[in-house]
Amino acid sequence: MTDPEPIRRIGLENVVVADTELSHIDGEKPELLYRGVDAQELAEKSSYEETAYLLWNGGFPTRDELDSFRGELDDRRSLSHGVAEIVEHAPEDAVPMDVLRSAVSATSVYGDGDGTTRDRSLSVLAKAPTALAAFGRARDGYEAVEPREDLDTAANFLYMLNGEEPDERHAEILDTALLLHADHGLNASTFTGRVIASTESDVVSAVTGAIGALKGPLHGGANQDVMEMLLDIEDSQKDVSSYLAGMLEDGERVPGFGHRVYEAFDPRAEVFKKIAKEVSEKTDGPDWFSMLEEVEAFLREEKRIHEKGISPNVDLYSGTVYYSLGVPVDFFVPMFAIGRSVGWTAQAQEQYDDNRLVRPRAEYVGERGVEYVPIDERE
Amino acid sequence: MTDPEPIRRIGLENVVVADTELSHIDGEKPELLYRGVDAQELAEKSSYEETAYLLWNGGFPTRDELDSFRGELDDRRSLSHGVAEIVEHAPEDAVPMDVLRSAVSATSVYGDGDGTTRDRSLSVLAKAPTALAAFGRARDGYEAVEPREDLDTAANFLYMLNGEEPDERHAEILDTALLLHADHGLNASTFTGRVIASTESDVVSAVTGAIGALKGPLHGGANQDVMEMLLDIEDSQKDVSSYLAGMLEDGERVPGFGHRVYEAFDPRAEVFKKIAKEVSEKTDGPDWFSMLEEVEAFLREEKRIHEKGISPNVDLYSGTVYYSLGVPVDFFVPMFAIGRSVGWTAQAQEQYDDNRLVRPRAEYVGERGVEYVPIDERE
Repeated sequence: MTDPEPIRRIGLENVVVADTELSHIDGEKPELLYRGVDAQELAEKSSYEETAYLLWNGGFPTRDELDSFRGELDDRRSLSHGVAEIVEHAPEDAVPMDVLRSAVSATSVYGDGDGTTRDRSLSVLAKAPTALAAFGRARDGYEAVEPREDLDTAANFLYMLNGEEPDERHAEILDTALLLHADHGLNASTFTGRVIASTESDVVSAVTGAIGALKGPLHGGANQDVMEMLLDIEDSQKDVSSYLAGMLEDGERVPGFGHRVYEAFDPRAEVFKKIAKEVSEKTDGPDWFSMLEEVEAFLREEKRIHEKGISPNVDLYSGTVYYSLGVPVDFFVPMFAIGRSVGWTAQAQEQYDDNRLVRPRAEYVGERGVEYVPIDERE
Repeated sequence: MTDPEPIRRIGLENVVVADTELSHIDGEKPELLYRGVDAQELAEKSSYEETAYLLWNGGFPTRDELDSFRGELDDRRSLSHGVAEIVEHAPEDAVPMDVLRSAVSATSVYGDGDGTTRDRSLSVLAKAPTALAAFGRARDGYEAVEPREDLDTAANFLYMLNGEEPDERHAEILDTALLLHADHGLNASTFTGRVIASTESDVVSAVTGAIGALKGPLHGGANQDVMEMLLDIEDSQKDVSSYLAGMLEDGERVPGFGHRVYEAFDPRAEVFKKIAKEVSEKTDGPDWFSMLEEVEAFLREEKRIHEKGISPNVDLYSGTVYYSLGVPVDFFVPMFAIGRSVGWTAQAQEQYDDNRLVRPRAEYVGERGVEYVPIDERE
């Protein structure tokens, strides 16, 4: 087999590197499909765990199948001693994504299952929330809270983070948030996981690499940026318009807007906006939702919105939702990672099922024929 | 800016995704250049640490610069308590690449430096060998050995692994082995690191992901496979030819041959072959070198060698070299990772210097318009 003609595409724009049956982003409609099902409909009717099952298996579970899948997660939620040490001994100023990446990586060092891809994928889904919650407790000086068998992933996370059973609606909201992040076509982190899987490396390696990629500010992070902006506006006692006018004058980009694929709007943002409104009405303190509406209105006024690609995206309204649930601001990107672990593991499996080693080229643009100079003759 | 025309290239064959000044593989000559200098010449005249300096900085260090660079590594070789716990508490049957990946990841959780890319890259180079050696000790039931300031990376590794100062020539040989693995253009692991870096994530995330990719049997691993084959031949008391004839009959591939880029031979293999001969002559026990020569001769006889792309590669002779130095067989791929960390960190830096987010596409080939079915109506 001869290699095809060389081409040069540094960011791999519009290069198709994989087939997927997992999720589809139709930017024109716009809609996000998981296994062909509208993600907005799933957000309303389904749960994170049912959606994980759907993405992994390609069909909806019966009640027995769903119970059994939940049981498999329950069996794996507790951290082995080695993983618990990593998160509980981490310095309080450790970066949560570094802690999560290391904890997930260590699940295969301190693995207790049968080591199959499915077992390891279940472990990642089950243990990542436990690890993050335990780090949250430890850095605040509290003991870790063991997961409970009667709570699902979202409720367990809030329970383990706060040490008390969460409000039922709060758990539902976090469940929806995880569901809405479960997969989103190919992107830098998912692609990272697929490249790793393409060497026939294991799924924990793939997810560990993907967490590292999601950590980058060009990928994850905008939900945290939005919340920090709102907190800064609140703190500065400026009104929203003059704060934003200042940002634009300084050439800064307002976070939470624009998406490469969605033209009119990001369907996930619609769901989060509704939830943000709901939690804002129920919560005391600053009215984050109204502030975000002001942000939207200001940018529309300035004609910086509703042109192609700069409508609100999933990150605009998700931050205030997490904040209202008591999730620390620096845990927003890790929450994204926990939700996306469903897609990372599913796409790694898809890679294994029809694999081809991913191995592009670099172009050498350096010198040639440079002589070795003995150390005492160097200047 | 509009996206270029869509193309489909699943393995990214011949797609140029980066410019590099670090290494160049000329498959026709054949030669491997580091910053324009012939790697075979460097293997003879330079050292791993000098070559790391060259790759990182683009020029040879003066004696003062090299001393200062070595000092920076010395300052970072000891593991912080948290990283030490991960490797020392790891079960004895943990996979060394899993341990190394987790330990490297944790260097940023338990970081003690200033957190710059340079500081973190130095930490990876300095601490990865310490972590691997400590795991080697721990799983054999021994206390970890602290690094010594008067030993370089290779000598320190052997010292920390075996608990005694290594034979000078052994340390030199390991130094050469690390040097010969320092960089090798773009490949699945280095590309993984660059994709992670392209999100502006940190260099430890990039290296952690790269280790995960190198772990895959389609990428690293052939040096270990060669050694296991030799041990199995020795064990089976068959002669080399009949053992290999059996492999070929079973449709198995003989490891250690062929490379995508080198047509005639892999210049690194030449260096390793010389070293393998030297250590074989000095070492008691099975004559691995003669066995490998028989392997080569058999495959040449069978006309499976010296056709395009199936000459000996770097993995054929490197395994027996590591083995003769007392490096455990399952540490061969981690040794590759330790050497390649120079290239992974350097290429991450190159990505930061002229970055573009890497974000290819997947083609959705699944269903559309699938309706949500309430759980009690499912079959």
